[in-house]
Amino acid sequence: MLCVLSACGPTDADLRERGEILPSWEDGPARHAIMEFVRTVTDPASTGYVNPADRVAVFDHDGTLIVEQPTLVQFEFLYQRIKTLAGDHPDWTTTQPFQAVLEDDRQLLAEMGYRKRGAIVAAGQAGITQEEFRTAVADFISVARHSRFDARFVDLVYQPMLELIRYLQASDFRIFIVSGGGIEFIRNFAEDVYGLPRENVIGSSMKTDLHELDGRLVILRKPGFSSLNAGRFKPLNIKLHTGRRPIMAVGNSDGDLEMLRFTEDNAMLSLVLLIHHDDQEREFEYADDSVQVRQMAQARGWQTVSMRRDFKTVFPAPRPNVP
Amino acid sequence: MLCVLSACGPTDADLRERGEILPSWEDGPARHAIMEFVRTVTDPASTGYVNPADRVAVFDHDGTLIVEQPTLVQFEFLYQRIKTLAGDHPDWTTTQPFQAVLEDDRQLLAEMGYRKRGAIVAAGQAGITQEEFRTAVADFISVARHSRFDARFVDLVYQPMLELIRYLQASDFRIFIVSGGGIEFIRNFAEDVYGLPRENVIGSSMKTDLHELDGRLVILRKPGFSSLNAGRFKPLNIKLHTGRRPIMAVGNSDGDLEMLRFTEDNAMLSLVLLIHHDDQEREFEYADDSVQVRQMAQARGWQTVSMRRDFKTVFPAPRPNVP
Repeated sequence: MLCVLSACGPTDADLRERGEILPSWEDGPARHAIMEFVRTVTDPASTGYVNPADRVAVFDHDGTLIVEQPTLVQFEFLYQRIKTLAGDHPDWTTTQPFQAVLEDDRQLLAEMGYRKRGAIVAAGQAGITQEEFRTAVADFISVARHSRFDARFVDLVYQPMLELIRYLQASDFRIFIVSGGGIEFIRNFAEDVYGLPRENVIGSSMKTDLHELDGRLVILRKPGFSSLNAGRFKPLNIKLHTGRRPIMAVGNSDGDLEMLRFTEDNAMLSLVLLIHHDDQEREFEYADDSVQVRQMAQARGWQTVSMRRDFKTVFPAPRPNVP
Repeated sequence: MLCVLSACGPTDADLRERGEILPSWEDGPARHAIMEFVRTVTDPASTGYVNPADRVAVFDHDGTLIVEQPTLVQFEFLYQRIKTLAGDHPDWTTTQPFQAVLEDDRQLLAEMGYRKRGAIVAAGQAGITQEEFRTAVADFISVARHSRFDARFVDLVYQPMLELIRYLQASDFRIFIVSGGGIEFIRNFAEDVYGLPRENVIGSSMKTDLHELDGRLVILRKPGFSSLNAGRFKPLNIKLHTGRRPIMAVGNSDGDLEMLRFTEDNAMLSLVLLIHHDDQEREFEYADDSVQVRQMAQARGWQTVSMRRDFKTVFPAPRPNVP
């Protein structure tokens, strides 16, 4: 007997009965496509039926589950870390990219791109143990707030996506977050924010090493990436971590293109969703980072999700802090 | 709400009621230690209580779950692959290490050690897609038989360990296999043989790359290791895949030493088991590969499991082939 999935939440039937399937989704083509897909892969009488063991869905993180504008939440964390550590590094006040962080020069930082900001990644999250990193992330996440919305970053997750995760879990799917962001960064709030276990997060990873510290074995984070989980590396890391090809994938940018194709190329029935950020009023409107993937979505008939048209509400109602 | 584990099997209480907790274990110190540990970490009133989310147990594979003598099952697979592919490689009949494989010179192969046999690993399982590899492993596993026992390799798993896995699952543990063997090799029978999902296997991995083949994205296995999952790399890969430090670990050789220590160094209550192969009559007797870890087990008071004394039965009763 193979036991792969929790039955601890409400079932698909429970949700249907309570009218709770995707309540924050407008009753349009995207919601229809999702419900039709789930109905088919869970119906043993259907030719599109998929065994529970193979029901794996992958979700990009930034821009797919959580606001990524004007700055990725992980960079907000890194900027705060640099400010915290600056006392020990007097040279940072006159050295880039640190100077821009300390002066909060957002325009200059944005112009630098990811590559020039690499030193921030190394200085901000290397040279400490995974346990120290966990504490630093937890401290940041519990209080850090967004610059435009009056909310913590982790409350700026998309309510329709949280409902989609619950709906899929109720239909015996296993959900993995597959992010270009740091694997341990996201893990440190995945359980509280998304209800997903730490092991269901796949992301970019730093080099690490095992050390003895005060008689205990600990894992030390080192400068430099072990894996930068974007583009072609998303399918490779999905396979490494899950051993499978997903049957459902959700993304929003060109870095998700290979993951979406890899999912569609499954021999089983699959569903690919592409999130469009087209709601300047309630969230943000931008498309520069999704030129290729939008072309491919059109060519392949992938289901697009318009935040403006398909989301009844964007963010969860205010909720108490997670203990 | 966090849902991390299946409740699809019998519960701890079900097993107790039916007298089915570890029935193939002798009623000695090892069985007592296991049951006391599980009772404590699952008792909310105990100071040793551990949240279900943190109940992760890791098991080495070869020699811990399955017979590894006289040859690792994966090397049997590789030898067969070399023989299958030999027609396309006439030079192999006069080139080592291939010649030894083709002549079935087991003594010479054993003397070569793992390093000199590296070319077998590359030639036997690289240059094909993950899907082709999966088929090759499935074909081998379904028929390949052990040289001493009249049984398929995958039926030479330890019945007491299968029961331990079921008992832990019934107590809301998540079980990961953490092997020096190939991650995709073991995944291709983990569900049928151990009842563990593919994503709960951690192992050595080959380099891979993404390719387009007949219009489909596929993952190609390349020569060379991406990660050799032994020694210090076991804790690092456990952290990479699960994001956690386990609370229970089971191993049998020096390659497991760091994994066992990493588990014991958890801030939560932990249990470390070391399997002794001391039963020449029913299995094998050997200790050359566990000199250091046995010393450490003695120094740290880890629980040893004697196959001779603690296992009432070693192998499962004959069972029908898995379809």
